[in-house]
Amino acid sequence: MTRALVTGGRGFVGRQIVAALAAHGFEVAATTSSKPDPLITGARWFTVDLMDPAATRQVLRDWQPEILVHAAWDTTHGSFWTSEANYDWVSASLNLIRSFTAEGGRRFVGVGSCAEYDWNAGTCFEASTPLQPWHCYGDCKATVFRLSSRFAADRGISFAWARIFLVYGPHEGEARLVPSVVRGLLRGETVKVSLGTQIRDVMHVADAGEAIATLAAGDVVGPVNIGTGEQVSLADVVGLIGTLTGHSDLIAYGALPLRPDDPPVLVPHVTRLRHEVGYRPRHSLQTGLADAIAWWQQKQHDNAQIGD
Amino acid sequence: MTRALVTGGRGFVGRQIVAALAAHGFEVAATTSSKPDPLITGARWFTVDLMDPAATRQVLRDWQPEILVHAAWDTTHGSFWTSEANYDWVSASLNLIRSFTAEGGRRFVGVGSCAEYDWNAGTCFEASTPLQPWHCYGDCKATVFRLSSRFAADRGISFAWARIFLVYGPHEGEARLVPSVVRGLLRGETVKVSLGTQIRDVMHVADAGEAIATLAAGDVVGPVNIGTGEQVSLADVVGLIGTLTGHSDLIAYGALPLRPDDPPVLVPHVTRLRHEVGYRPRHSLQTGLADAIAWWQQKQHDNAQIGD
Repeated sequence: MTRALVTGGRGFVGRQIVAALAAHGFEVAATTSSKPDPLITGARWFTVDLMDPAATRQVLRDWQPEILVHAAWDTTHGSFWTSEANYDWVSASLNLIRSFTAEGGRRFVGVGSCAEYDWNAGTCFEASTPLQPWHCYGDCKATVFRLSSRFAADRGISFAWARIFLVYGPHEGEARLVPSVVRGLLRGETVKVSLGTQIRDVMHVADAGEAIATLAAGDVVGPVNIGTGEQVSLADVVGLIGTLTGHSDLIAYGALPLRPDDPPVLVPHVTRLRHEVGYRPRHSLQTGLADAIAWWQQKQHDNAQIGD
Repeated sequence: MTRALVTGGRGFVGRQIVAALAAHGFEVAATTSSKPDPLITGARWFTVDLMDPAATRQVLRDWQPEILVHAAWDTTHGSFWTSEANYDWVSASLNLIRSFTAEGGRRFVGVGSCAEYDWNAGTCFEASTPLQPWHCYGDCKATVFRLSSRFAADRGISFAWARIFLVYGPHEGEARLVPSVVRGLLRGETVKVSLGTQIRDVMHVADAGEAIATLAAGDVVGPVNIGTGEQVSLADVVGLIGTLTGHSDLIAYGALPLRPDDPPVLVPHVTRLRHEVGYRPRHSLQTGLADAIAWWQQKQHDNAQIGD
């Protein structure tokens, strides 16, 4: 069995990658800065601070992974766009790929972001859209892409980079769009949103994790956009949540302004994912949102039972 | 008096920046990883390993510079193009600007390189030539440019970035072009060179240091190419050294091949340096090379006296 290691294995996307790699037949370990998640089975856990080079090296020495999927990063809602922690993650990520290579690792797959692209582009192509990020977060992700790519080429290891667009689903941060709409409607509250004219590609996080695991298991190199290839407006997304919860009447469109740094169109070109990696998502927007709503319903139910 | 700090103050370029800032009336301190250079007067010295964040922070806390000129980097001849140390300098440089800002610093000037540009460009413009480096060194320098620039903008400090092209002069590494030709000819040896058709902008290092100090003392922001604005072939440079030393007959042109990664033309556009910073070099190629030759002559003389 091939050994894989996933950093940030408790994270929103990382936990899906762990599950998908295990399903692909890898022997999987995951790192966390806190403690193992008992809900994620089938992986060995390492509790490690990736800011600590010696401790990180020790994990790689102990586990000896052939494949590393680097999903860890600071993604605190709101603040992560401009947080100084982004610079720490640049250093930690460079250290990670160097230690991985020194310990004999074969293939490194980094988790990047649509925030690396120039958002004036609208549709983003891996090969041609300029990496001209609008925020510190995107700059730091693009930096790790560039330097890891260089390092891997110089040292002869295989390198791929998964650029995620909009993802939603279980374990998403509560302040983000889909959870805030779902939770508000499930509680019977009025939910304020913008006009929702923004065109996006929204993907269920289990599909994103599966796409990244498929990428990691193969031999495609370089940047690969992760998305469904379907373009929807955020109003479509919110409207479908309204329909599925039976609370369309509680949605106040236009009650929030459109943000000036929120581009009108931001979608990936997904030819590489579809035809080189060979991955197509399992969920439609309807089945994906239904799954997310069911998960938040279950969570509210569980919380109510323990008196939360 | 305004306090300035120069990292890499013993270096080939750094020592010239220290001298020029002192001449500009700054109260100058310099860092070195080894020990103070008794030849460089007028500066306070801090011996510090810039890879150590806590020690670096302490220097900034002690000296409280308003202006920081970051000239330190690994430039070991030959190996620095691909060395892993470049990645360490990315982390160290990001740490440096963050600590400097946290300690109340006002203006950060980084020392960059023509290696940040796509060398297919020929003439490099700050505003339009793509940062598409051919080597790890250039990638890492361009990274520090991008991320420091972002950091400075987000935190409201002044930021400039000096991109040096070809420099020569006292204290240059002996294996580099000008010293190897000068030293060979002074010893009366045959000196093998390529055809020397490469077009370059070559600048005396004292002028480069003066240009960077002038940039640091002013308020011009963003990238600024450092060069003379004169284009010469390397054959011109070598030929002039031959004339000045009286040993033109010892130069074997074409005895070495042109390297495939050595671009035919690599020169800066210097409008920003001339008209925004307001700097023009003091040395012509002739007076500059004469100065370099005199320095190497003196060094050979001194070494002979101590039996080297």
